[in-house]
Amino acid sequence: MALLGHLDQIFRKIDENASHFVENLAEAVAIESISAWPHKRSELTRMVRWTAEKLRKLGAQVELKDLGEQTLPDGTRIPYPPILLGTLVVDPDYTTVLVYGHLDVQPARLEDGWDSPPFVLTEKNGALYGRGSSDDKGPVLGWIHAIQTYQSLGVPVPVNLKFVFEAMEESGSEGLRGALESEKEGFLKDADYVCVTDSRWLGPSRPCLTYGLRGVSYYHVEIECSVKDLHSGVYGGTVHEAMTDLVYLLNALVTKDGKILIPHIYDQVAPLSPEEADIYKAIHFDVDVYKRDVGCKELIYEEKEDILMHRWRFPSLSIHGIEGAFSEPGQKTVIPRKVVGKFSIRTVPNQRPESVEKHVTDYITRKYEEYGSPNKIRIHSTHATSWTENPYHPHYEAAARATKSVYGVEPDLTREGGTVPVTLMLQEVTNKNVLILPIGASDDAAHAQNEKINRRNYIEGTKLLAAYLHEMGKL
Amino acid sequence: MALLGHLDQIFRKIDENASHFVENLAEAVAIESISAWPHKRSELTRMVRWTAEKLRKLGAQVELKDLGEQTLPDGTRIPYPPILLGTLVVDPDYTTVLVYGHLDVQPARLEDGWDSPPFVLTEKNGALYGRGSSDDKGPVLGWIHAIQTYQSLGVPVPVNLKFVFEAMEESGSEGLRGALESEKEGFLKDADYVCVTDSRWLGPSRPCLTYGLRGVSYYHVEIECSVKDLHSGVYGGTVHEAMTDLVYLLNALVTKDGKILIPHIYDQVAPLSPEEADIYKAIHFDVDVYKRDVGCKELIYEEKEDILMHRWRFPSLSIHGIEGAFSEPGQKTVIPRKVVGKFSIRTVPNQRPESVEKHVTDYITRKYEEYGSPNKIRIHSTHATSWTENPYHPHYEAAARATKSVYGVEPDLTREGGTVPVTLMLQEVTNKNVLILPIGASDDAAHAQNEKINRRNYIEGTKLLAAYLHEMGKL
Repeated sequence: MALLGHLDQIFRKIDENASHFVENLAEAVAIESISAWPHKRSELTRMVRWTAEKLRKLGAQVELKDLGEQTLPDGTRIPYPPILLGTLVVDPDYTTVLVYGHLDVQPARLEDGWDSPPFVLTEKNGALYGRGSSDDKGPVLGWIHAIQTYQSLGVPVPVNLKFVFEAMEESGSEGLRGALESEKEGFLKDADYVCVTDSRWLGPSRPCLTYGLRGVSYYHVEIECSVKDLHSGVYGGTVHEAMTDLVYLLNALVTKDGKILIPHIYDQVAPLSPEEADIYKAIHFDVDVYKRDVGCKELIYEEKEDILMHRWRFPSLSIHGIEGAFSEPGQKTVIPRKVVGKFSIRTVPNQRPESVEKHVTDYITRKYEEYGSPNKIRIHSTHATSWTENPYHPHYEAAARATKSVYGVEPDLTREGGTVPVTLMLQEVTNKNVLILPIGASDDAAHAQNEKINRRNYIEGTKLLAAYLHEMGKL
Repeated sequence: MALLGHLDQIFRKIDENASHFVENLAEAVAIESISAWPHKRSELTRMVRWTAEKLRKLGAQVELKDLGEQTLPDGTRIPYPPILLGTLVVDPDYTTVLVYGHLDVQPARLEDGWDSPPFVLTEKNGALYGRGSSDDKGPVLGWIHAIQTYQSLGVPVPVNLKFVFEAMEESGSEGLRGALESEKEGFLKDADYVCVTDSRWLGPSRPCLTYGLRGVSYYHVEIECSVKDLHSGVYGGTVHEAMTDLVYLLNALVTKDGKILIPHIYDQVAPLSPEEADIYKAIHFDVDVYKRDVGCKELIYEEKEDILMHRWRFPSLSIHGIEGAFSEPGQKTVIPRKVVGKFSIRTVPNQRPESVEKHVTDYITRKYEEYGSPNKIRIHSTHATSWTENPYHPHYEAAARATKSVYGVEPDLTREGGTVPVTLMLQEVTNKNVLILPIGASDDAAHAQNEKINRRNYIEGTKLLAAYLHEMGKL
C-alpha cells in the first residue's frame, strides 16, 4: 500500500507539472534536428547537448560518444552527431533498465503542407503539433520527467538506469552498431532489461506493448544519360533518356495491389502458424478508423487480420521519389542528366538483408540488361533487419501491469510495420529481453505533415513510464 | 559603296564598344526573371522596366501592356508581367520590321551544378556564363546595341522598328496571344516583316536561318492516394500507393528508343517529301560534335539525317519529373499522398494540339482504367503549336546576305526542335513572313546548367543585327 501510495502521489505531481513538461517539449521541438539533411548537422549536436544537460540535472553521468564520419552518397564526408550515453545509479543492488530513444527527426518544411510551423510546438484541440513531438522527443522527455517527479517527491527511483539517446535514427541509425558493440563489456554490461520508447499505438486510443518490427532495405537506383541537363526541344528524340529508363525499372517492382514482383523475395518469409494467426484475432483494431486515417477510397485488404499481417509480418515495397528530376511546381522542359530513383522494402522474419539485397540487385540488373539501354546504372542500398521478441516474458508482464495502472486496460500485444534498427542491435549486444513501450497514438502522423502528440498521451505516457519503473523495481 | 562604308564603320564601332555591351548584359543577367517561379514575379516586372528604359533612350515610344492574371495549377491567381511594346519610327516611308525577344529565363540555382553563380555574368575562355546570357537577354541587347551604334555614328537606322519583348516565354507565352490579337489593327498593323531572335545555331560555329519549330504539349498527371503523406513502415502493404500508379502510367508512354506508345500520335505527322529529305543532306552538322555535346555513350540514331529529322520534324516525348514525391538527397521513407507526373510531347507539322491532347488523354484514361487502381487521377495540359515558314522568301535572302557580310559564309537553312510559341502567333496575327535569326551557338546550354553565350557570338551577333537592318532597308 505504501508503494501504491507513492505512485498515486507521482501521478498527481505529473498532472500538476503538465504545463512545464509541455514547455520543455516546445524547447526540444524548436531544435531542427533533421538527420537526413547534412546542413542541419549542427542542430543534431545541439539537441544532443540540450538533452545531456537535462540528464545531468537528474544526477546522471553523461558521455557524448563520438561516432566518426558519415560518407554521403556523393562521397563527401561529414561528422556524425555524438551518441548520448547516460548512467543513473540509485543502488548497485537494483535492477538496471536500459532506455533507448532518439533525438533526431524527419525532414519538415511549412510548405510541405503543415498547418503550423513544424518547429513551433502548437497546441490545438488537445494535441501538441510539431516535428518530433511524437517521434521521438516527447517520449524521451517522458523518461526525464518521470524520473524528475520521483526525485522532486523524495521517492527513490526504484531501478538503475542506462540511457542510449542517438541522433541518426531517422537515417538508419548509421554509426550506432559499432558504438554499441564497443560498449558490450562496458556501458552495456550491467543492463538487465531494455526498453525502447519509439513507435506508436496501433490505434488512436488503446495502449499496447510491441514485440516485433519490420526491417527496411532502402535502394538508390541511379541512371545517367548525359553530361548535363538537356533541353527537351533541342535534344528530345535523339537521346536515350535517363528518366524513361528509371520509370521502366520502378514500374517493374510492385503491382498496384502491393505484390512485390522481384523473384524469390517471398521465399524466406516465415510461414504463418495457427498460434500466430490467433494473435491477430484478439487485437483491438477498427478497420474503418484506419481507413479514415489514411483517407483513401479503398484499401488493398478489408479484413482486420489481413491488414495487420500485411503491415507487420509480410514485406511491402514503396517508391518514395526521384532525385535529380524536375520536382517543383510549374513546367520545365528538361531532360534530366542523372536521376536517382528511391524505393524501399520493409522486410520481415526470416528475410535476411543480404538475400533481399541480392534478389533486388540481380533482378534490377537483369531487367535493365533485357531492356537494353546504353545508359549507366548504379545501385546503392542500406539495410536494417526485422526484429521479434518473446512477449510472454516477465518484462512484458510488468509493462502490462504498469499500463493497467495508468489506463485501466490490458495492453494489446502488437507488432509494428516500421523499423527501429536499434531494437535488434540492443537485443543482439545485450542478449536481454527488449520491450517497445509506445507512448503516442497511431494518428500522430510521424514522418508526415502535422505530426503531433496528444496532450493526454504525453502526460499519461509520462505516468506510464513512472509506473513502469515502479513495476520493474519489483522484478 | 557609301552604304557598305557605313556598315564597316558600324562594325568597327561595335568592336570598340564590346566591353560596354558585356557590362549591359551583366546587368540584365543579374535580374532573376524566372517566369516558372511565381515568387520571382516582381523580378520579371523589373526586367521589363529595365529594358523599356533602354528603348526609351533610343527614342522609341514604349508601352507596358497589362496581361491580367495567371491562374496557377493550384488555383491561386498572380499577375502576369506586362508585355513591352516599343515603336521606333525613322521615316514613315521606310519598311517596318517587327522584332521579337523575351526577357524571362529558365529556373537556375547554384546547387543545380553551376560552376559560377547563375545570375552573375562570368567570363571564362571567351564565353560569358549566366542564366539568360544566350536565352534570350543577349540577343535582346543585340538589337538595342545595333541601333545605338547607328545612332552614335549619326547614320540613320534604315528601317522603322516595332519591338515585342515578353516575359512569359519560358512558361508557354501565356497571356500573349490575346494581347497580340487585340493589337492586330493597332500596334501590329504596320509590320512588314517579323524577325525573332530566340533559339541558337545548329552547331557551335556555323550561322543559320531557321524556318521551322516544333510545338509542345505539356502534361501534368496527378494521382492522389490518401489525405496525408504516410509512413511506409506503418502503412506500406495496405495502401494502393499513388507513386506505383504514376510510375505505371509514365512507363506506358515511350520506349527507350524514343518511340511514343500513344496510339494515333503519329497519324498527323507530315509525310517526308524527297525535296525536304534533300534539305537535310545539305546541312553542316557534325554527329560526333553533337554526341560529345550530349556526352552520352550512344545516341538513338547515328546518321546525320536521322538525327536532324528526329529533332525537327518527328515528335518526341520526354518525362521531366514528379512533383510531390521525395526529391531531395538522402533517404525518406514516405508514401507521398499526391504526386504529379510531368511529361511533354514536342509536336510537329501537321499535328493539331487538340488531336494530340485527345489521343494522350484517351490513352492515359484507358490505361488507368485497365490497371484498375481506386486512386483519383486528374490530367491537366497546355499546348503550343509547331511552326514552319517559306525559307525562299526575299526576307530570308536579305538575312542570308547580312550573315555573309559578318561571317563570310552562307547560313544553313534549318529548323529547331524547341518551341517558341510566339513565332506562330506572330505569323498568324500579322500574316507576314517570319524569320528566326539565331545569335547564340548550339552549345550555349540554354535551359541547362552553365548557360553561356560566346563573346564572339554576342558581338558578331550585334553586327549581324546591324547588317540585317541594313539589308532590310534595301528591300
